[in-house]
Amino acid sequence: MMDKRNTVEVCFSPNDYPLYKSDHEIVVVIDVLRATTAIVAGIANGLESIIPVATLEEAFIYKAEGYLVAAERGGEIVEGFSFGNSPYSFIDPALKGKKVVLSTTNGTKAIKTPENKIVVIAALVNYRAVGNWLAKQNKNVLLLASGWRDKFNLEDTICAGAIADMLLANGSFTSNEDSSIAAKYIYQSAVENMFGYLKASSHRRRLKKLNLNEDIKFCLTPNQFDIVPILKGDEIVAL
Amino acid sequence: MMDKRNTVEVCFSPNDYPLYKSDHEIVVVIDVLRATTAIVAGIANGLESIIPVATLEEAFIYKAEGYLVAAERGGEIVEGFSFGNSPYSFIDPALKGKKVVLSTTNGTKAIKTPENKIVVIAALVNYRAVGNWLAKQNKNVLLLASGWRDKFNLEDTICAGAIADMLLANGSFTSNEDSSIAAKYIYQSAVENMFGYLKASSHRRRLKKLNLNEDIKFCLTPNQFDIVPILKGDEIVAL
Repeated sequence: MMDKRNTVEVCFSPNDYPLYKSDHEIVVVIDVLRATTAIVAGIANGLESIIPVATLEEAFIYKAEGYLVAAERGGEIVEGFSFGNSPYSFIDPALKGKKVVLSTTNGTKAIKTPENKIVVIAALVNYRAVGNWLAKQNKNVLLLASGWRDKFNLEDTICAGAIADMLLANGSFTSNEDSSIAAKYIYQSAVENMFGYLKASSHRRRLKKLNLNEDIKFCLTPNQFDIVPILKGDEIVAL
Repeated sequence: MMDKRNTVEVCFSPNDYPLYKSDHEIVVVIDVLRATTAIVAGIANGLESIIPVATLEEAFIYKAEGYLVAAERGGEIVEGFSFGNSPYSFIDPALKGKKVVLSTTNGTKAIKTPENKIVVIAALVNYRAVGNWLAKQNKNVLLLASGWRDKFNLEDTICAGAIADMLLANGSFTSNEDSSIAAKYIYQSAVENMFGYLKASSHRRRLKKLNLNEDIKFCLTPNQFDIVPILKGDEIVAL
C-alpha cells in the first residue's frame, strides 16, 4: 500500500540542497542565529516587507537607491550600513510600515537558494506557528537549515527538528531521510536545556565573543511570535 | 593562551569534504553498512590487502586482469563479480593471504576522497582500536562518514561520534565544529539501544528489504576486531 502521508525532511545546509531539491513544494528556511529570527521579529513588528539579498554588491545598490539596508557578515554590521541582523534592531517601532533590505552571512543566501518553491521563514521564535501552518497545507516540506558557511550547525538543526517533531507527531507526515531522524533526535535531547546543549556550539561561541548574549537569549526563546513570514516575489511579507 | 590540543572533527559525507579538508593529517573513513565493516573483517581475517576502487569501470579492468573483485551497488552484488560487500564474504577462510579489489556505492568513494592524508578505516566493529591508535598519534583527525549517495546517514555518524567521544573524553583532543558536537550527542543517545535507534534509518530499511538482517547484526556489533586497517598507496593493509 502506498504511503499517502506528506513528507517532512531536513537539509542541513544550502550546500546539500541540490541533493534534496526534488519532492517538496514548501521550503522552510531557518537561520536561528540570527537572520530568520530578525526577519520574524521585524514582520511581527509591522514592517511592510523585508527584501533578502545574497550579496553585499546588491545591498550597496539598494542603499544607493535610498533603501534602508541591513547587512551583516561574520556576526558584525558591515561598515556603511544602518544595522546588521540583531533582532533588537528589527523590533524598533520606527521601522513599522517600512521596507528593509537584508543581507547576512548565511540566512539570506539560504532564502535565495530554492527555485520555484513556496518559501517561508522559521526560527525558534515562531516555530510552532510555522508547524501549525504546515500541518494544514497537505504538501511535502523541506526544512532548510542555513548552517554556517555551508556547514552543519546545531541551532538551525534543533529548530528544524522541533518542526519535524510537531509534524511527525501529528501523524499526517512521514520522513525518509536520516537527516530528518537525526534532527528530531537532536531536538528531543536539546529541548529541556537549550542553553546548556548549545553551550559548545561554534556560532554561539562566536557571538558570545562579540558580546551578543542578549541577542542569543532572544533567538533561543521559543514561540514569541505567532506569525509565518513568506517570500512573495523578492519580498518577505506576513502570510 | 593557545589551545595546544589536537582537533577531532566529523564530516557527514564526502560531499561536504571540501569544507573540512584543511587542518587535519589523518582521515578516518567510516561506512558501517557495510564497506568499512567488510574491510575491517577481511583484514582481520588475514587478507593480504584490499584495493578500493571508486568506479565499476576500474573494477572491471581489475577483473579482466585476473583479480578477485567484489562490487556492490545499491545494496546488491553487481552482476559479473564474485561478491559484494557483505562482511561474511570477507571472513571466508579461503581468502587468507589474497588480495581483493572492492568497489561499493559509498564507502570506496569516501576512501578515495582525501588527498595527501593518512587514511585509516573504521567501523563499529573496530572503533575502539581506531580510537586508541588515534589517541597516540598527536595529529589532528577528521572522521569522514561515507553517508548514502552524498547524504548524511545515521550509522556512520554514530560510529564517528563514538570515536570523537573517546578522544574528547581522553582530554588531549578538542572539537570546533557543530557537526562533531552533534555526532557525539547522537552517539551518546544511541549507544544504549543501537538497534532501536537505527530502526527508522533509511539504509537499515533498505538492507532489511534485501534480507540482510544477519549482515546488519554483524555490522552493529561493536569492537569485534582489534585492528586498524590503513591505506598504503592503493592498497588497504593491516597497520
